[in-house]
Amino acid sequence: MTSRGLLLKSFRKVNTQHKTCIGCLATTPSRHVQTGPEPATPRIVTEIPGPKSRQLIKELGKIQNVGAVHFFCDYDVSCGNYLVDVDGNVMLDLFTQISSLPLGYNHPAMIKAVTDPSNLSTFVNRPALGIYPPADWVGRLQAALLSVAPPKMHHVQTMACGACSVEHGMKAMFIKFMTERRGSATLTPEEMSSAKEGQPPGCPNLAVLSFNNSFHGRTMGCLGITHSKYIHKLDLPVPDWPVARFPELKYPLDDHVRENQEEERRCLAMVEELIDTWNRKGLPVAAVAVEPIQGEGGDNMASRDFFQGLRDITNKCGIGLLVDEVQTGCGATGLFWAHEHFRLSDTPDVVTFSKKMLTGGFFSKESFVPKDGFRVFNTWVGDPSKAALLEAVVNVIKGDNLLDRVKVTGQHLLNGLKQMQGKYPGLISKARGLGTHCAIDFKDAASRDKTIAKLRERGVHTGSCGAATLRLRPALILENKHVDIFMESFDRVLANLNK
Amino acid sequence: MTSRGLLLKSFRKVNTQHKTCIGCLATTPSRHVQTGPEPATPRIVTEIPGPKSRQLIKELGKIQNVGAVHFFCDYDVSCGNYLVDVDGNVMLDLFTQISSLPLGYNHPAMIKAVTDPSNLSTFVNRPALGIYPPADWVGRLQAALLSVAPPKMHHVQTMACGACSVEHGMKAMFIKFMTERRGSATLTPEEMSSAKEGQPPGCPNLAVLSFNNSFHGRTMGCLGITHSKYIHKLDLPVPDWPVARFPELKYPLDDHVRENQEEERRCLAMVEELIDTWNRKGLPVAAVAVEPIQGEGGDNMASRDFFQGLRDITNKCGIGLLVDEVQTGCGATGLFWAHEHFRLSDTPDVVTFSKKMLTGGFFSKESFVPKDGFRVFNTWVGDPSKAALLEAVVNVIKGDNLLDRVKVTGQHLLNGLKQMQGKYPGLISKARGLGTHCAIDFKDAASRDKTIAKLRERGVHTGSCGAATLRLRPALILENKHVDIFMESFDRVLANLNK
Repeated sequence: MTSRGLLLKSFRKVNTQHKTCIGCLATTPSRHVQTGPEPATPRIVTEIPGPKSRQLIKELGKIQNVGAVHFFCDYDVSCGNYLVDVDGNVMLDLFTQISSLPLGYNHPAMIKAVTDPSNLSTFVNRPALGIYPPADWVGRLQAALLSVAPPKMHHVQTMACGACSVEHGMKAMFIKFMTERRGSATLTPEEMSSAKEGQPPGCPNLAVLSFNNSFHGRTMGCLGITHSKYIHKLDLPVPDWPVARFPELKYPLDDHVRENQEEERRCLAMVEELIDTWNRKGLPVAAVAVEPIQGEGGDNMASRDFFQGLRDITNKCGIGLLVDEVQTGCGATGLFWAHEHFRLSDTPDVVTFSKKMLTGGFFSKESFVPKDGFRVFNTWVGDPSKAALLEAVVNVIKGDNLLDRVKVTGQHLLNGLKQMQGKYPGLISKARGLGTHCAIDFKDAASRDKTIAKLRERGVHTGSCGAATLRLRPALILENKHVDIFMESFDRVLANLNK
Repeated sequence: MTSRGLLLKSFRKVNTQHKTCIGCLATTPSRHVQTGPEPATPRIVTEIPGPKSRQLIKELGKIQNVGAVHFFCDYDVSCGNYLVDVDGNVMLDLFTQISSLPLGYNHPAMIKAVTDPSNLSTFVNRPALGIYPPADWVGRLQAALLSVAPPKMHHVQTMACGACSVEHGMKAMFIKFMTERRGSATLTPEEMSSAKEGQPPGCPNLAVLSFNNSFHGRTMGCLGITHSKYIHKLDLPVPDWPVARFPELKYPLDDHVRENQEEERRCLAMVEELIDTWNRKGLPVAAVAVEPIQGEGGDNMASRDFFQGLRDITNKCGIGLLVDEVQTGCGATGLFWAHEHFRLSDTPDVVTFSKKMLTGGFFSKESFVPKDGFRVFNTWVGDPSKAALLEAVVNVIKGDNLLDRVKVTGQHLLNGLKQMQGKYPGLISKARGLGTHCAIDFKDAASRDKTIAKLRERGVHTGSCGAATLRLRPALILENKHVDIFMESFDRVLANLNK
């Protein structure tokens, strides 16, 4: 068949009614795309990973390390909240690709964005966006990003992934810090030549303060502010920067108000002390980086007062505050950005995003936008095709009032978790979360891991974080009925574990 | 109109014969996609940037820094070797989005990859590839990447962009270095706890040696091995690692054989000396990073002997050799990988790629694949949709024998450049290159910049690098007729400049 013939054959009808399974849309009968309805329940037919996954893991193992691979997936037939693996196991997905699917699998609006001919050249021609942006780029930034910008933030820079977003967000803060120090002085020849060599004064000794149990990414700068697991940094010459204590709150919060306030005050005092110490030892702290909820490190939360304290300290010291919303952003907490829950008196200076936003990037205050070109820059600086997908996602979030749904479903989920911890008090504790971004702690890692495995055997896919935490990261389209399916399985697994 | 109606309307015929302009394929009459034929000649109708570009730059300037933006483009109607800007200027593109388009604009094979229904779920559902890979991932890696792997390299890891590829390539080398040092010893509790803190012994003092005028990316680790322009690192606390001299060869090469050999020997001696010095000062060099042709730093080339010398030294010292092919890879030199020209007695340990490969990533020897999971890892670790596009590109490169075409066109291009430097000896010199990856030096930056501007006024788009170099980075589909168009304009511009 000619390539033309193949192509014409391929343009079959796509059903976007979100009601029936798509017919054969593919050039071979084996490729279908499922847009709905999603399955009514999970369905497990093999152990996981099943025989097909195990075979594929073996083959992939000849090409790269597969130590992290759980199982292989059939994304053609995965649908809504349900992930289907290559062995035909249908799982309710409460982890959604490490918290990176805003609308679940094969959402019609995303299919439409990919198949919309007016987006075709956007998917085909990836530009060097910082030099030759496409005609529709300003409109796209407005529709996909500025329309959901954190309060009072009107500047945004896209990037390819979360790590690059944090790296360049930090660069923007270093540049701001040194530009202020330099004041009206012009660059000296020594600054220019030493910068090329990577030596002071052009490349000054500067640090970013971060918190224990933090996670911000796996490139060198990001690893300097990441302190959740040793395996992330083992054997790597990462920056030696100050690490403050992140509050360890006692639960239930209502029973430990005074202790928790004191704990947060101690942590804030440590931040001030570290900034002072490092300034005095000639390694000035140019910025503080923090997650609104520490994800990888164990879903650790702190109060509005703590974050307002960080904002006050950083403002007082004249240094930047980077709020890393790579995992928390895009609505899962019930507000578009998790830090909005803190109602800070002054907005953060840089807010990074990726994962559910589909494109990496960061918002910043105008004063943190470098005055010169080619400083926060690379070949691609993002990808318009990801912004096109994000625009579709943002339209669905708004049109379907998904933030409201997340609030309702999240309340149902958190209530359920609290009920369970009441029922199994020796086993689980600290049910917590905002929206559907929820977690619960186990008495130890072994019981947490066993629970996750047993849940998966029942077709409910969840994730872990921290030392002994189970984390839930569903898509924004989760409904109460899905929570009920999870909670029924959770109850049974815990009951068995408690025997 | 219903969303279903809109979608059906959108599935119009796509002409892939590469002969006629596509008809209205879009939901609005303003969006067309041009697949051919490409224009016969450039056509300039306004100054560049024209009024529409200037207006868009003004609007984008309210959202982010626009210091690097040249002009806005209409990617719907750009076609083949011709880039069209929003003001309707049609330019022969010899810079191709900073060397990142393998097949020019809107190539039918790439349109087919995007519109192929069997790829639909790949574009819609971006997975956490390191944990839940799609069913077709092993096949995709084989078809898109291993089928074009450098000689004797059978392992590959994808990443999102060039910087992440270099960052994780370096991590693989640090891990290999320390794993060998540790030998059969098990990890100590101290190594684990200090790694979390970012302190030795878990996070050891290690360095990567690089060369002056090198460019490897703009994240913190990449900046530690980048030394081309001060603006890349100014104000940033980058790693302080050893920098050796990259050979400065004299041209014409045939007239300076002995001097150039001595220069390369001096540079290699400096590499050995630096490794020794840094080892002795307790900051061991774990790897050497080098570009086969220094791109951003000025298209600086060295001989096979120099690169074989680097391979010999790194092998002798038991450290890794990272060859960064982000700009040189994917065929533009006439071989798929530039370092293949060197016919090294032993393959590099890590070869990084991005740009024209459409996905970032790196090949490595098996011994440089970490033994544990979650070490070279992040949420996305690449993007199957980019691998789908790359598979289409690789098929075209093979099917259309593009490497052979690049050799023929490249010879024509280099001959033309040499003819020009014979005609304008005081103005230009050092015509050089492999395949169509060519460059020529000007007597100073001002005449280089003026030439690029004047060429653009005549509809030929080129790029700059280094201090006074004009670099040519056409797509692999460039033909002799395009070279002739460039060369005629180049001659006229140089003649005027020489007056």
